[in-house]
Amino acid sequence: MFQPPRPPTVFLLSQGDEVITGQTVDTNAATLSEWLTELGFLVTRRVTVGDVMHDIVAAIAEGLNSADVLICTGGLGPTADDLTAEALGTVLGVPLVLHEPSLEHIQAIFTLIGRRMSDANRKQAMLPQGATPLQNNFGTAPGFSVESPRQGQAPAVGYFLPGVPREMKGMWAEHLKPDLIRRFSLSPGRLITFRCMGAPESQLEEIMRPFQGIDGVTVGFRAMSPEVQVKLRVRPDVTDERLIPLIAQVQAAIGKAVFGVDTGALEDVIVAALIERGETLATAESCTGGRLSAAITSVAGASAAFMEGACVYANEAKMRTCDVDAGALAQYGAVSEIVARQLAEGIRERAGTTYGLSTTGVAGPGGGTPEKPVGTVHVALATPQGTFHRQLRLGGDRDRITRYAAASALDLLRRHLQGVLHGDNL
Amino acid sequence: MFQPPRPPTVFLLSQGDEVITGQTVDTNAATLSEWLTELGFLVTRRVTVGDVMHDIVAAIAEGLNSADVLICTGGLGPTADDLTAEALGTVLGVPLVLHEPSLEHIQAIFTLIGRRMSDANRKQAMLPQGATPLQNNFGTAPGFSVESPRQGQAPAVGYFLPGVPREMKGMWAEHLKPDLIRRFSLSPGRLITFRCMGAPESQLEEIMRPFQGIDGVTVGFRAMSPEVQVKLRVRPDVTDERLIPLIAQVQAAIGKAVFGVDTGALEDVIVAALIERGETLATAESCTGGRLSAAITSVAGASAAFMEGACVYANEAKMRTCDVDAGALAQYGAVSEIVARQLAEGIRERAGTTYGLSTTGVAGPGGGTPEKPVGTVHVALATPQGTFHRQLRLGGDRDRITRYAAASALDLLRRHLQGVLHGDNL
Repeated sequence: MFQPPRPPTVFLLSQGDEVITGQTVDTNAATLSEWLTELGFLVTRRVTVGDVMHDIVAAIAEGLNSADVLICTGGLGPTADDLTAEALGTVLGVPLVLHEPSLEHIQAIFTLIGRRMSDANRKQAMLPQGATPLQNNFGTAPGFSVESPRQGQAPAVGYFLPGVPREMKGMWAEHLKPDLIRRFSLSPGRLITFRCMGAPESQLEEIMRPFQGIDGVTVGFRAMSPEVQVKLRVRPDVTDERLIPLIAQVQAAIGKAVFGVDTGALEDVIVAALIERGETLATAESCTGGRLSAAITSVAGASAAFMEGACVYANEAKMRTCDVDAGALAQYGAVSEIVARQLAEGIRERAGTTYGLSTTGVAGPGGGTPEKPVGTVHVALATPQGTFHRQLRLGGDRDRITRYAAASALDLLRRHLQGVLHGDNL
Repeated sequence: MFQPPRPPTVFLLSQGDEVITGQTVDTNAATLSEWLTELGFLVTRRVTVGDVMHDIVAAIAEGLNSADVLICTGGLGPTADDLTAEALGTVLGVPLVLHEPSLEHIQAIFTLIGRRMSDANRKQAMLPQGATPLQNNFGTAPGFSVESPRQGQAPAVGYFLPGVPREMKGMWAEHLKPDLIRRFSLSPGRLITFRCMGAPESQLEEIMRPFQGIDGVTVGFRAMSPEVQVKLRVRPDVTDERLIPLIAQVQAAIGKAVFGVDTGALEDVIVAALIERGETLATAESCTGGRLSAAITSVAGASAAFMEGACVYANEAKMRTCDVDAGALAQYGAVSEIVARQLAEGIRERAGTTYGLSTTGVAGPGGGTPEKPVGTVHVALATPQGTFHRQLRLGGDRDRITRYAAASALDLLRRHLQGVLHGDNL
């Protein structure tokens, strides 16, 4: 049996006053952690410090002494509180030296945007002696990497990147990822992601239990409320002959809740399916207030399938735009199955689309009654084959209720498009 | 002159495999950092480790030895990988003992939801000997606090909280905040937040430079794209006689970009103003696809002022719902000043509201032309006094362009409601 070696370890360091004081949420750390884990690294420790020289020096030294890889983000800017290069120089006992190509790169950017480079920016081209510069094609500050000798082991490697997420991500793809794969001879294996809607994480964990012990396969979960992702991390020695039937087994076990395997989000899957089928969609929203149409139109190219959304908040708007019956509103109220159905049918008729999709509910915090408490939501889908409806009882605050309501409406349409709307499992 | 003492220091520890592998973004750390900074603490270091006993023990010991306060989140759950209590026992050299009231609390929750308590949950009531339990009114796991003696100083204090953000926040408010204020005799001072729209951070930094040196006042910034917040942290010895004119001076210096001082978000300010004036709003969106109406309806009680939103993606929908002129569409295209104006006027007319607010633009990535590149956006506001229009050239990807377009439309309405729509500063 293939025995995987001990995974190489990573120490992540985020630095900056804006992070340590909570003005910025440190998304870099989570992004890097996820990518490194998927490559096969073990992230052992993450540390955050402010713009304090002593603290940065201590954290860099700790990282280079305790892990195979140190990745540091932040502190490469032009201002006085950007201290990373100097701190690294202190740790390594080397001076900062001017890196001419980096200075030219910075000057070129300023020329391009028609502004004069300040002396402060010159500082960004001062790198610790012996460091390898990493060109930044997304901003002015170059990154750099260093090797730090260790007794009886290969040297530790340190990477120093800007803290701006766009720049960090660009430099990861261009420099770090290929360098790490080469340096540690990684065979990252494969990652298969089952994107699921309509099944809670606890239920998916139960379904996946029989797959937990399979040699060479690790099962993970990621809750993205309401979507849940089931992830198979597959060791590189697992052959396609074993993997392909396994994927089919997992998909069959989870059933109709899987809306895609290694695909985009629910709205991406829906827009792609509509375009492929040459079909069109319009929406009529009450409680979701535009979140449903905003999700669909977040997909580039959605205009090929999405025609119109009506955010019919007032009852008058429901009647005028979606032809909802005044009697139904009076007898059953706006939050009712019949109004959800009339909204979906009315917008489909008005817009002349293949499908009409609707939501109506009590988003809270006010407006609840004993019969229709906050969280009561109706969604409906009008199709050429008839209209389908679901009633939901959602928990949480206004934001959570409207988010889940929009996702539930999308999932109703997705299940219809995938031919799994009826049936009993999930 | 009042000399503030050295601020007490805090070490934050987040633990859990889901955090260190990047499956969860650690928002707890940012939330606690912000609250602690506002109370007057100096957060010196944040550390994250996985569910590894040795790493947790080392991090707890480091925290209790290096700062006045340690706050640890996560690892209090019922499963085998929840190790915090045991790790703390190891650090302090004490056994875990059953805390009867906590066990009763857990049992009561299970009785309430009609489920049987598992033996695993019993573990959640096992606390390190000598720890003070902190009741959790938002979940099963109790938190706890300990004091750890230090040579020649007051003992360090450690707080251990669940990792679920809702539970952490509830326990902060109920236990930690009052306990910390009492323990460190804090006078938190005041925080004044100027919420600004339409002025970039660099410009606000320049405007605020004269206020940087004022005794007892610290100026900070928080970019929330596109909103920017200017924050004054005011020392407790600054009197109202000094502070009130200072607030007025800052507001005058920033000018029309300030939409509120210590208020909610832009949409909250708009909905409150509409309700106060007894006025109503309808929206017509093209490129923003529902984000504008979703922002407005995210405000609880928005239905008192918001009547209807039309997401008129297709040109036919623009004509049918907002009475946009076919000739204007043919001659100028959907992304044009005249169509933005007709959208705003058309939806105002149709919905019978005081105001009509519209967006139309090229969100990208496709659809750009040399004359109308990606990021070209028109917003318009129809009012009883006439229709106002702004053209924008926005950068970034589809998500950023639609987010900025929706915020710019809201800000056009906000400036009208606050009587600052015309003029030359910002």
